[in-house]
Amino acid sequence: MTTPQPDSDLARLSRDIQSLNARPLWERTQRMGPGTPAVPTIWRYRDMRPQLLRAIDLITAKEAERRVFMLENPGLPGTGYITTSLYCGLQVIKPGEIAPAHRHSTNALRFIIDGEGAYTTVEGERVAMRPGDFVLTPGWTWHDHGHLGDAPVIWLDALDNPFGQFFGAIFRENYPDDAQAPSLAEGDAAARYGANLMPVEYRTGRPSSPLLVYPYNRTREALLRLARPGPLHPSHGIKMRYANPLDGGYVYPTIAVFIQYLPQGFSGQTYRSTDGTAFNVVEGSGTAHIGDRTFDFEPHDVFVVPAWTPYHLSAAKDCVLFSLSDRAAQEKLGFWREEDPSNSAARS
Amino acid sequence: MTTPQPDSDLARLSRDIQSLNARPLWERTQRMGPGTPAVPTIWRYRDMRPQLLRAIDLITAKEAERRVFMLENPGLPGTGYITTSLYCGLQVIKPGEIAPAHRHSTNALRFIIDGEGAYTTVEGERVAMRPGDFVLTPGWTWHDHGHLGDAPVIWLDALDNPFGQFFGAIFRENYPDDAQAPSLAEGDAAARYGANLMPVEYRTGRPSSPLLVYPYNRTREALLRLARPGPLHPSHGIKMRYANPLDGGYVYPTIAVFIQYLPQGFSGQTYRSTDGTAFNVVEGSGTAHIGDRTFDFEPHDVFVVPAWTPYHLSAAKDCVLFSLSDRAAQEKLGFWREEDPSNSAARS
Amino acid sequence: MTTPQPDSDLARLSRDIQSLNARPLWERTQRMGPGTPAVPTIWRYRDMRPQLLRAIDLITAKEAERRVFMLENPGLPGTGYITTSLYCGLQVIKPGEIAPAHRHSTNALRFIIDGEGAYTTVEGERVAMRPGDFVLTPGWTWHDHGHLGDAPVIWLDALDNPFGQFFGAIFRENYPDDAQAPSLAEGDAAARYGANLMPVEYRTGRPSSPLLVYPYNRTREALLRLARPGPLHPSHGIKMRYANPLDGGYVYPTIAVFIQYLPQGFSGQTYRSTDGTAFNVVEGSGTAHIGDRTFDFEPHDVFVVPAWTPYHLSAAKDCVLFSLSDRAAQEKLGFWREEDPSNSAARS
Amino acid sequence: MTTPQPDSDLARLSRDIQSLNARPLWERTQRMGPGTPAVPTIWRYRDMRPQLLRAIDLITAKEAERRVFMLENPGLPGTGYITTSLYCGLQVIKPGEIAPAHRHSTNALRFIIDGEGAYTTVEGERVAMRPGDFVLTPGWTWHDHGHLGDAPVIWLDALDNPFGQFFGAIFRENYPDDAQAPSLAEGDAAARYGANLMPVEYRTGRPSSPLLVYPYNRTREALLRLARPGPLHPSHGIKMRYANPLDGGYVYPTIAVFIQYLPQGFSGQTYRSTDGTAFNVVEGSGTAHIGDRTFDFEPHDVFVVPAWTPYHLSAAKDCVLFSLSDRAAQEKLGFWREEDPSNSAARS
Repeated sequence: MTTPQPDSDLARLSRDIQSLNARPLWERTQRMGPGTPAVPTIWRYRDMRPQLLRAIDLITAKEAERRVFMLENPGLPGTGYITTSLYCGLQVIKPGEIAPAHRHSTNALRFIIDGEGAYTTVEGERVAMRPGDFVLTPGWTWHDHGHLGDAPVIWLDALDNPFGQFFGAIFRENYPDDAQAPSLAEGDAAARYGANLMPVEYRTGRPSSPLLVYPYNRTREALLRLARPGPLHPSHGIKMRYANPLDGGYVYPTIAVFIQYLPQGFSGQTYRSTDGTAFNVVEGSGTAHIGDRTFDFEPHDVFVVPAWTPYHLSAAKDCVLFSLSDRAAQEKLGFWREEDPSNSAARS
Repeated sequence: MTTPQPDSDLARLSRDIQSLNARPLWERTQRMGPGTPAVPTIWRYRDMRPQLLRAIDLITAKEAERRVFMLENPGLPGTGYITTSLYCGLQVIKPGEIAPAHRHSTNALRFIIDGEGAYTTVEGERVAMRPGDFVLTPGWTWHDHGHLGDAPVIWLDALDNPFGQFFGAIFRENYPDDAQAPSLAEGDAAARYGANLMPVEYRTGRPSSPLLVYPYNRTREALLRLARPGPLHPSHGIKMRYANPLDGGYVYPTIAVFIQYLPQGFSGQTYRSTDGTAFNVVEGSGTAHIGDRTFDFEPHDVFVVPAWTPYHLSAAKDCVLFSLSDRAAQEKLGFWREEDPSNSAARS
Repeated sequence: MTTPQPDSDLARLSRDIQSLNARPLWERTQRMGPGTPAVPTIWRYRDMRPQLLRAIDLITAKEAERRVFMLENPGLPGTGYITTSLYCGLQVIKPGEIAPAHRHSTNALRFIIDGEGAYTTVEGERVAMRPGDFVLTPGWTWHDHGHLGDAPVIWLDALDNPFGQFFGAIFRENYPDDAQAPSLAEGDAAARYGANLMPVEYRTGRPSSPLLVYPYNRTREALLRLARPGPLHPSHGIKMRYANPLDGGYVYPTIAVFIQYLPQGFSGQTYRSTDGTAFNVVEGSGTAHIGDRTFDFEPHDVFVVPAWTPYHLSAAKDCVLFSLSDRAAQEKLGFWREEDPSNSAARS
Repeated sequence: MTTPQPDSDLARLSRDIQSLNARPLWERTQRMGPGTPAVPTIWRYRDMRPQLLRAIDLITAKEAERRVFMLENPGLPGTGYITTSLYCGLQVIKPGEIAPAHRHSTNALRFIIDGEGAYTTVEGERVAMRPGDFVLTPGWTWHDHGHLGDAPVIWLDALDNPFGQFFGAIFRENYPDDAQAPSLAEGDAAARYGANLMPVEYRTGRPSSPLLVYPYNRTREALLRLARPGPLHPSHGIKMRYANPLDGGYVYPTIAVFIQYLPQGFSGQTYRSTDGTAFNVVEGSGTAHIGDRTFDFEPHDVFVVPAWTPYHLSAAKDCVLFSLSDRAAQEKLGFWREEDPSNSAARS
């Protein structure tokens, strides 16, 4: 970086080319190293839940369109984003409400935190949402939410809106009606794609998983079954990714989604990678050391590890953690790296 | 085809080049159209079962290495093959027996017909075999069978040995011991790959499904769930293929494996394709019209539809049919075709 | 979008959750449609060239590290970027200079505008740079530039730095020396990968084209050969993309690079797509109508069509246009769309 | 293998199940190891050429349909095949002749040995055939040959007919006329796909290379350019495969095609692999030690190395060898293996 002397020829050149919409590379001050302005942050459920319940009475789903609190990283003020590439929010829906049907080019997912009776209809198939269920509404699929239960339901939303904004490729459409009429039997996608079977005709089209839901009981059972014999990864415990049965890849081309188990007493080795990651605590409690911050966490808390920030986790009780990052996009575009001391070479 | 006059110059030329290991193309008599010498055939379980039980007392598993009847298509005498590209056999194992551990470059699969208590150990993981279960022993994996139950167990074997022979690429090795010591917990592969989750680290290596078993209860449940709303394919009813969770493809690079449901009263439209297919009746009864043959079938019967032979199926009772063909290889190599009247253009 | 009444309960809620790093979704003002703040812009070579030559005498390559003018879109002030996802610059090197060797995780490419005698060394292989040549320095490859000719050489740089910044995954390293010693013969990559041949051993590793240069004479010859019979695309004339011989895809996972021919008199139909595109005029002259702007262009001018901005081109003389966009990344991540009136349905 | 005592119960069982189209696995005598019945063979051009010229006068192209000598491996009598999975022939066409247009599901290729002026028309594009050119007529493409030159032209044909026969998937059709009218400019495919460019629209469809010809001058130039610096593979010298620009793979899904250079004095290390390979000597002379046979070879000779047969080559003069094998199919189906002493582990 070179800052020219004021009144020097170099400075005059700099001014002259500015009017030509050009700037000297040697005056660039931008950081040119790994990491982003995002900072480690935690949203404690004990703080968020009362506010969400308050919001129920203050604005209707129709007025809000979606009654959601955006979880905004204090290092990214004004963006509404949790990392530079991911958006997360907490949504609350009350009994009888409908979140009107729409579709958008960006991919969305829901992880149910609390409450029974809510459902999402995706392209005509209704899927029930239970705590711990991971529900997909892939890009450009019609979706609406409803609630047939008795008490408010709260879930974590995540979208790749920052990608849409980065590209300038966000498209939205409202459905003609508030809700779609069911046209497929419940459980159709699960039977058609989720039982290690596939229709004889290859299904092309969407670049996302064709499954609408990854039910918690099945996920939890597999995770714990692998936990028994181990081995545990020194930083991650037992960590699995939700998979697309069509190609074995991530569920979305952009967002990688994970489920993780840490046994009581687990004390993880420091680790970092280029994919900024948002965590939601499903079960258990422990401590997250992220950069220079330390957060004790409890069930339903959300915390974020920004890109290339070293962190390690420890578990006071058996923990199950749900997480998501832009690792899918980074791997596809050749940017992903990690520093894993249990792996002799830094891997990318 | 031109047959030269004896004593003509053309005939003399023909003789002269024979000593040079050459032959005139214009004298070739080989059939140059679709289809193979294989013929429609049925192996009725009521005929096969008593013979299999007889064999138990006449030869030990150790002497036989595998106590198996090869199902040989009468159109392919001397080959031991059921179609030009597939091998099928019926294997019987008695309580306490061990089929010694070995591995081979060819891919094998088992479909359990009758009996409980048998198991296969694949690369250190034991998998129980129950009727209707579809078990994999991919190429070059160590495998042995054992039987902890009370009564003989009978299953259908299928291998792509003809491919190995075609290429000259059959390799075999015997394991140092008769049986492998279990080194992985039962159900490991199912938890690791079969629950729509995947280890965070991509698993490369074998070009086959990492699952060891597709249990019948799960398969049957998905099949029947899709049967209710339909739609039914006019020739196939509800037909699914077993899928490789790593890539959404067939379970083996060579062998495509299917499971199919025909509701009572189903009367299928005629159909044909280039992949010769072996069927095993899991449940139900009906009639298979294959070429100019007609076979009434019952549970556990095996019948074969040779390549490019028109056939149609009808169901006297609700039927579940297991089948396998070389469609996976044909699609990979660009040879597969079908004539499906429900599909406006012949598809390939 | 709902703005609460000041002093309302809703406004109080809004303030309360702000301290929790949350914001109501219903107060979000962000644009949620296609497009970006970037605007149509042109950088005329007759304006830029004199300034570049001026810069030669005002700063050395060593001081500048790279003597480059960043082409900054006036709609993206302070970023140094030409679109939200691409960086372009004009670089000038003088005889005898060396642009020191380094490597970075981001992908870079050069399109030579003017001058002979410059070269780039990439991982030990030297490649000469001639006008119209398209030269690659894929992510994490060591590269340095030198100049053995007589007169200044000017080229267009393009990098996917915005992606690196978006992810927080920019890594840089300086080579121990200013220049790499050549370790591979010139033309090695071209012979090894560019002649429709491939080493018998599959080359894995980099997700980019293994070719270092796409020479202009070969590109131009193929383009014009296809131009003669046509057909011409009503918006694009004859448009080809530079291809990666390893997989037939784009040269980089992020950046799509194109070469295009418009015959004299060509008057293109309006077209738009989500990938913001930077153009460099190689030959010819004409007019670019971009959004509500109109630019007459001449050889070596650079102009930009921002994402989702309708445009049409017309050619006063036979034109060859070089262009690049983030279409590769958008297609991989499922975001790409176009509106092409010559194609009945809007395609994505 | 167990042969029962005649009149034993086991023998009686064996007879009984024969009528049920079953045979005991324990009586199988088939070889169950690598390799095939094919043997090392050479077809010397000095022997074949006079016979080919003789054939010109004895049968017309119309009578013969294709005036070809099938090169039949003496280990595979009656098949007309050179290995279990490949067919090779020598074809001669005389000035003014037309080999009538047809298409078939099997893939064919031509390697021109001698003579100028012949051409092939593939789906409306005419391609000139010169010595050393490698010409493709992929499965199901219309093709006819003609000859506008002065003297007979001789080329090597190769087809994957054995695959078609193995699957029962050989389809043939005659074109309405003897020859197709040219509908594409000569050189269209080369410009469209062969210059490291690609049409902007992905070209799907055929699973084969879209190039019609790999001209010898370009191939030879690249090969020799790599030969100078080396390194040489201890068994293969410099060996490249012809590549499909659409995906970087082999030219056909079944047949792998190679070009190879051995410098004068080269004495290769012994090597073997599962893919039986046919060689055509383009330039030079030397010796091929194949199994227990030794063949001195000269330009235009054809020799075959059967599957899993150890061989080594030595060059008396600088040699260029064209070769083809079923390696493409074997790799796709997971069967390919090699024993390469220069590679520490046997690779597959």
